[in-house]
Amino acid sequence: MSHRVVVIGSGFGGLFATRHLERADVEVTVIDRTTHHLFQPLLYQVATGILSEGEIAPAMRDVLRRQANARVILAEVSGIDLTARTVTAEVGGRELVTPYDSLIVAAGMGTTYFGHDEFAGDAPGLKSIDDALELRARIFGAFEMAELEPDADARRAWLTFAVVGGGPTGVEMAGQIADLARRTLRGNFRNFDPADARVLLIDAGPRILASFHPRLAAKAAAELARIGVEIRLGGRVTGVDAGSITVERDGGASDRFPAMTKVWAAGVTASPLGQLLARQTGAELERNGQVKVLDDCTLPGHPDVFVVGDLMSLGGLPGVAEVAMQAGHHAAGQIIRRLAGDSAPRRFVYRDLGSLSSISRRFAIVELGPIRISGRLGWLVWLVVHLTFLTGFKNRLGALLHWVISFCGRGRSERTISTRGLIGRGRRS
Amino acid sequence: MSHRVVVIGSGFGGLFATRHLERADVEVTVIDRTTHHLFQPLLYQVATGILSEGEIAPAMRDVLRRQANARVILAEVSGIDLTARTVTAEVGGRELVTPYDSLIVAAGMGTTYFGHDEFAGDAPGLKSIDDALELRARIFGAFEMAELEPDADARRAWLTFAVVGGGPTGVEMAGQIADLARRTLRGNFRNFDPADARVLLIDAGPRILASFHPRLAAKAAAELARIGVEIRLGGRVTGVDAGSITVERDGGASDRFPAMTKVWAAGVTASPLGQLLARQTGAELERNGQVKVLDDCTLPGHPDVFVVGDLMSLGGLPGVAEVAMQAGHHAAGQIIRRLAGDSAPRRFVYRDLGSLSSISRRFAIVELGPIRISGRLGWLVWLVVHLTFLTGFKNRLGALLHWVISFCGRGRSERTISTRGLIGRGRRS
Repeated sequence: MSHRVVVIGSGFGGLFATRHLERADVEVTVIDRTTHHLFQPLLYQVATGILSEGEIAPAMRDVLRRQANARVILAEVSGIDLTARTVTAEVGGRELVTPYDSLIVAAGMGTTYFGHDEFAGDAPGLKSIDDALELRARIFGAFEMAELEPDADARRAWLTFAVVGGGPTGVEMAGQIADLARRTLRGNFRNFDPADARVLLIDAGPRILASFHPRLAAKAAAELARIGVEIRLGGRVTGVDAGSITVERDGGASDRFPAMTKVWAAGVTASPLGQLLARQTGAELERNGQVKVLDDCTLPGHPDVFVVGDLMSLGGLPGVAEVAMQAGHHAAGQIIRRLAGDSAPRRFVYRDLGSLSSISRRFAIVELGPIRISGRLGWLVWLVVHLTFLTGFKNRLGALLHWVISFCGRGRSERTISTRGLIGRGRRS
Repeated sequence: MSHRVVVIGSGFGGLFATRHLERADVEVTVIDRTTHHLFQPLLYQVATGILSEGEIAPAMRDVLRRQANARVILAEVSGIDLTARTVTAEVGGRELVTPYDSLIVAAGMGTTYFGHDEFAGDAPGLKSIDDALELRARIFGAFEMAELEPDADARRAWLTFAVVGGGPTGVEMAGQIADLARRTLRGNFRNFDPADARVLLIDAGPRILASFHPRLAAKAAAELARIGVEIRLGGRVTGVDAGSITVERDGGASDRFPAMTKVWAAGVTASPLGQLLARQTGAELERNGQVKVLDDCTLPGHPDVFVVGDLMSLGGLPGVAEVAMQAGHHAAGQIIRRLAGDSAPRRFVYRDLGSLSSISRRFAIVELGPIRISGRLGWLVWLVVHLTFLTGFKNRLGALLHWVISFCGRGRSERTISTRGLIGRGRRS
């Protein structure tokens, strides 16, 4: 019987691990609670009407259709038994128990509100396709409500968008909301000028894009200011409700901003599977729930269990796609070497291929060691990198078409929203 | 003050009326409960993963952004007062009252279950973007559940798709489900062959596509049979539940088909606004709720109120996009003539530009008077016509790209579904 590998999660970590096992004498089972592989770095473009959900989330089983040794299961993992070596998952009220010889846990991260779970309903995060479509409906819906609002203050609140978190996701969301207000929606409304929309980018730290070099982050901040994003630093969010957000400044004073639309891009927390693993192994967890692994990405005392991707804590590596891809690949490589009789653990060495963030139309920042690029050249690099990493030729072609529409023209093709909840939503105001 | 025109509905009737008023000295207010103009004839392609929702549903206010005399309101019409000449609509718990000098009611049709509203939850119709995305999740989700189902009979039920209604929508849905099972999903599953999926097309009449010439309909039926659609004629649906559909044959005997996925393309019923109009005017309604209008598309006794599109009953004209477009255009023309002092009602003359229906990949039927085309040539006509009528250059380009992907290749780019409800759905089985 072939060696059985179970992969939990179909993100970058899970996908790259599975793909690398293609020629190995193994049986891979990928378990995920969605049916797609999600290209998470572009979720903000689905939320802001540039890309369709299909373009960044191809069906995982279609991506793997030619890999005969892999199967995909739609289910939610509810248990991992490291002694019995089984993974339990639930779907349709039924429990599936899948035995493994090697396990790769790539379950990723969710949104955290730092103890304020009550913020969730009014300030959605951006981690899934459902999140992105919900935010799309809220953002475009807010402009619809503004058109109908006779009261100037209330209209102002519909036209104020507060993005919490100055990392790449928050920066990209804020930049795109500003761009769609000023360019895409031009001429669309009769009772107000969408260019008057106010976009707040709120971060508790002293600057945005803390993971980038200060000079590059400063250039990004200047570009955001140029397109109309208001950056508020050194402020902690202490209150969120349907109509406003409250920010406590470092000094202790509080500002309350009337804002109907809030986006939470501030905190990520590990999948609860991390805690489940920790309880059984004594593995340590970071404060955000990440699992501390040995330098070969395995759990202490469990050389058959790998934790990769955002869930993995190893040497302070950041929770970015590139780390997940390489760690997934590394875990698969170690399994392949073991099957060939070489069971010596191999250290995971991360090759930093640089980080990049798109700030506005035709303006991105790129950092690779000492190389720092910003502006239009950075944006071209961003474009090439994202086209390269999008899964599938079809999606690349579709995304390219939509980027031409949005970045050369001013339109956005994917503004369509479900209004099922929208007509009632204003009621909360 | 300009003449005030209120248009209810942003479908083909409402859009063509509004566009034709562009140069008139009027103020147009379009009221719709969605934010988009829906290209309804292609909804089935959103439901089956070929097109994205943005491609067939551009934002109505973006379509009209350069038409300065038109504004768009997102709200649900709750009342029409023909005496006070006002339209009342609700949004966000607020009532908007819009006065009109001329009114164009183009509210369209919804799904009817012929007195069996209890079927709705298990057999969704296909009239809106929300419907299409719901059906997309059910169709692709059913294959996911089949992959997990160990019991052969239960798996068979997940792999059985029952489409009720042999008109163009039902035929197109059935054809596309068969095509995706046999081509798109090939190699995607490990526990069954998706080509084994059973697609039933159920109609109460003696043949499918009753509005087409019998010879053409027969060719369509043969093509459907070739790609694996099982046509069941002369059967009335008497029962629908989560796991099955029951069909009573003409003789009286009943067949119960285990089928987890049902699509209701059998009955349309007019918007409740039709009844509202009838109560105030004594206008007659058809059995399906359509409003009988005078031959200039106005309500009897109310020359300032037009009913166009699917809601209109006039000389047995079919409820198709082409009738709605031309009637909307006609109503706008009559308003323009009246403003120029010519108040004589002009008869609406429908120019039949033919009907067409796409049966399978590269096979469509086209009928224009005595001209009847089927097969690949018909499909080319279908392609050109749909590309021509899709609203907006961007959407044409996007749709063309997706058609190349789906009809030349075998992929579908827009398979992405929300799995929020899916993991629990199987529970009902």
